[in-house]
Amino acid sequence: MQVTFSPEELVSIVGSPSTRGVTSQQITGIGALDTAGVGDLSFLGNSKYRAQVAISKASVLLLPRDYEGEPGVDQLYVFLENPSVGLARICARIEQQMWPKPMPGIHPSAVVAADAKIATTATIGPLCVIESGAVVGEKTHLQAQVFVGRNAVVGEDCWLMPGVSLGTECILKNRVRLHAGVVVGSDGFGYEFVEGRHEKVPQVGHVIIEDDVEIGANSTLDRARFSRTVIGEGTKIDNMVQIAHNVIVGKHCILCAQVGIAGSVVIEDYVVLGGQVGVAGHLKVGKGVKAAGQAGITTTIEPGQFISGHPAMPYMLERRLHVLHRRLPELFKRVDALEGSR
Amino acid sequence: MQVTFSPEELVSIVGSPSTRGVTSQQITGIGALDTAGVGDLSFLGNSKYRAQVAISKASVLLLPRDYEGEPGVDQLYVFLENPSVGLARICARIEQQMWPKPMPGIHPSAVVAADAKIATTATIGPLCVIESGAVVGEKTHLQAQVFVGRNAVVGEDCWLMPGVSLGTECILKNRVRLHAGVVVGSDGFGYEFVEGRHEKVPQVGHVIIEDDVEIGANSTLDRARFSRTVIGEGTKIDNMVQIAHNVIVGKHCILCAQVGIAGSVVIEDYVVLGGQVGVAGHLKVGKGVKAAGQAGITTTIEPGQFISGHPAMPYMLERRLHVLHRRLPELFKRVDALEGSR
Amino acid sequence: MQVTFSPEELVSIVGSPSTRGVTSQQITGIGALDTAGVGDLSFLGNSKYRAQVAISKASVLLLPRDYEGEPGVDQLYVFLENPSVGLARICARIEQQMWPKPMPGIHPSAVVAADAKIATTATIGPLCVIESGAVVGEKTHLQAQVFVGRNAVVGEDCWLMPGVSLGTECILKNRVRLHAGVVVGSDGFGYEFVEGRHEKVPQVGHVIIEDDVEIGANSTLDRARFSRTVIGEGTKIDNMVQIAHNVIVGKHCILCAQVGIAGSVVIEDYVVLGGQVGVAGHLKVGKGVKAAGQAGITTTIEPGQFISGHPAMPYMLERRLHVLHRRLPELFKRVDALEGSR
Repeated sequence: MQVTFSPEELVSIVGSPSTRGVTSQQITGIGALDTAGVGDLSFLGNSKYRAQVAISKASVLLLPRDYEGEPGVDQLYVFLENPSVGLARICARIEQQMWPKPMPGIHPSAVVAADAKIATTATIGPLCVIESGAVVGEKTHLQAQVFVGRNAVVGEDCWLMPGVSLGTECILKNRVRLHAGVVVGSDGFGYEFVEGRHEKVPQVGHVIIEDDVEIGANSTLDRARFSRTVIGEGTKIDNMVQIAHNVIVGKHCILCAQVGIAGSVVIEDYVVLGGQVGVAGHLKVGKGVKAAGQAGITTTIEPGQFISGHPAMPYMLERRLHVLHRRLPELFKRVDALEGSR
Repeated sequence: MQVTFSPEELVSIVGSPSTRGVTSQQITGIGALDTAGVGDLSFLGNSKYRAQVAISKASVLLLPRDYEGEPGVDQLYVFLENPSVGLARICARIEQQMWPKPMPGIHPSAVVAADAKIATTATIGPLCVIESGAVVGEKTHLQAQVFVGRNAVVGEDCWLMPGVSLGTECILKNRVRLHAGVVVGSDGFGYEFVEGRHEKVPQVGHVIIEDDVEIGANSTLDRARFSRTVIGEGTKIDNMVQIAHNVIVGKHCILCAQVGIAGSVVIEDYVVLGGQVGVAGHLKVGKGVKAAGQAGITTTIEPGQFISGHPAMPYMLERRLHVLHRRLPELFKRVDALEGSR
Repeated sequence: MQVTFSPEELVSIVGSPSTRGVTSQQITGIGALDTAGVGDLSFLGNSKYRAQVAISKASVLLLPRDYEGEPGVDQLYVFLENPSVGLARICARIEQQMWPKPMPGIHPSAVVAADAKIATTATIGPLCVIESGAVVGEKTHLQAQVFVGRNAVVGEDCWLMPGVSLGTECILKNRVRLHAGVVVGSDGFGYEFVEGRHEKVPQVGHVIIEDDVEIGANSTLDRARFSRTVIGEGTKIDNMVQIAHNVIVGKHCILCAQVGIAGSVVIEDYVVLGGQVGVAGHLKVGKGVKAAGQAGITTTIEPGQFISGHPAMPYMLERRLHVLHRRLPELFKRVDALEGSR
């Protein structure tokens, strides 16, 4: 955050009639109660940190109405029904300053095919390339150096950040957000082994990304062999996640950073995969499954399970086996003793 | 796939004189027997799915000559010696439409050094940068926003997709395909620890990628300290694979997504590494070795082995140990009982 | 290396008055004693390879003064107090040729906001985009196709390679080197689960990268929720490393390729994480900790430990448990025997 608010502006944004104390500081940062300093805003969002309020050095604190302590010197308390909501309002204001609404139009340095259809309220930033037949919807923002391939379709209100590559015939629905360096529509990894060489299997399908999906920086999503690779509505994908060809990811899933999903896997709705989880090909991961970080999923998983380990198994079992694994030295000694006493 | 074929065009492409039934549908998709719907093409490529033909909703089906069933209403059967070959022909036709041959020439928005040598049949797409002394061979296609560094050499018939970065003095031989975001020739990761700081070891070697190599989106290949990092002929590399400095990968290997290979490793010919496999530095992985996903290779592996686990060991051993690991609760109980009966 | 030196030039660069033998070869490569060939330079940097000198085919060899053998035909020995220092001098000369100092100035194809502040000695290469309010310091080099977002600040003597994306309000201090495809300042991965959907938590903090940090190709570093994500002075990060929001990495750390660090982790100074290591959220990894490749760090680690495995534990313990794990078949047989003899 490199924006500055006066204490009065903050009080106005959160809409609080009730304050205690006063500060002369301009607010230039936000921090947790224990790390915020002079010039920072902090807040009590969780009552378990209540004891930290009195010793916080923040210049402005958002507090629940029932907080009874007194502010320090040059410190302002602002009382709210819900301090977290107040913080969210301030963050929304900061966001407007960090990412102001771009002006609609096509930057003169962009290279846009004559037959591409660009909505009048869309923004095509500098040095973007839009190939023949592509479509960009209303209010969509291609920030800079974005590539949109032949016949690709971008819906409304999307945001494609610098260096994103959207391949031929791939489809983004509405309010899709792709962070810098995301590649959608690279070829699936398919070869036939013929006479000592790997011959390429053409990958002529595409990728569909449904409404309200967000995908983190440098993630890659392969186009299907034929048919489609799909990311379901509302699913959120972190940085450097690999989605292979023909994968179907359901709605409202969470895929943490560096997850890798092999070809033709089906991930049902509301699945959560921790960082660096791997899923082997042609499996199904049932609705609501949660997998701990680095798990290796090698079989179909029934809905609702919490799994971990490699190969992945139910979390409680994996933990129990791990505890026994750590007791192996003791077990060997006990067997030695039994043999000695035979 | 966003192209359309009439049933007559499909019959003409696959060259079949023998059909049964009729459909009025235009074909706009390809699907498996059980998922294809009206307007889709499907095929019987593997006899174990024969029972699915009768219940498939595809409008056109490619079937072996000996298939005896009757098509449904508005459904066309097309009989072929080998339905998979027919499908491949259709896919090849789709590919031509998805990726039409680019026009040779240099896009006016590209920035090409005066002394770079660009073959007359090469295509340099929009917003590419080609630095001094670089060479681009005949029929090679730099799609868009590609970077080619000083004195780098790209052979014939290569395809570099959007956002690829080819570093100074690196070499691509012929028919090399680099997907979006690939980085060839980043610095090797080498430092000397001197007086509490990491001092950089210059990385002045390069990378050579031999004929018919394909590399997936956002993979990274580091230049050698001096000498060269090599990817052998016909090797296929998936997305987000990391190849460190001085690695030598042999011919016709398969490296699945998110594999990481540390410095100075030698991977011999025909090795297959599953997704997320890691290989520690300065090892050799023998000819034809196969490693299961997430394996951690920490020692040199003799040719021909199938390995898995971390640290990687022969697959059958790893499986057997895993089965016994799951029986640890039972084993502890048995030892308890033995002790109790002593 | 695609540069050529005469033997006389090499002798002059290393400043040696003492040589033995003579070669007519021009030197075009550098190799280890056992792999170097005619036309290559080699060196004896470690006395354990002394026996390889006599059989080396290199045309020029850098040797310690006390080496007593005789060069072969068409071979030159060059004697130095410290051959490794001589090699470093040659590499420095090669580097100057590979990466000549760029000319200061802004390439006409770059798109630079009118109110961005570009130092007069900075080089802004072709097709870069610099948004409003950004600052680029003296002698800094943006090579090509680099993106610098609103109000971002790049210090002095930095080098940002092709395709780097530096997000809004992020800060690079001095002598920072970002390899191709690095993304700094993508959004942290934060959502609240509300009525069956993941609602985005605004990420309005930034990233600060301190002096002398180098970051490998296609790595990603997320901006903080509010406050900052920090990479400490002198830390070196390899390719495809993921740093989540609010992570604090200390000074002089080494993070090898494909490491993933979850949100709000603190990595203290001088930590070394091997390839593919994962660190779960909100932990502290103590000063000087070393973690073996693929380790999964799931708890806070005290300073100075060497850890491995998943979950990570002290290396010696992990090794010991692994040895016993491999003896499980034997242990089961021994328990069978005990039961049989009961």
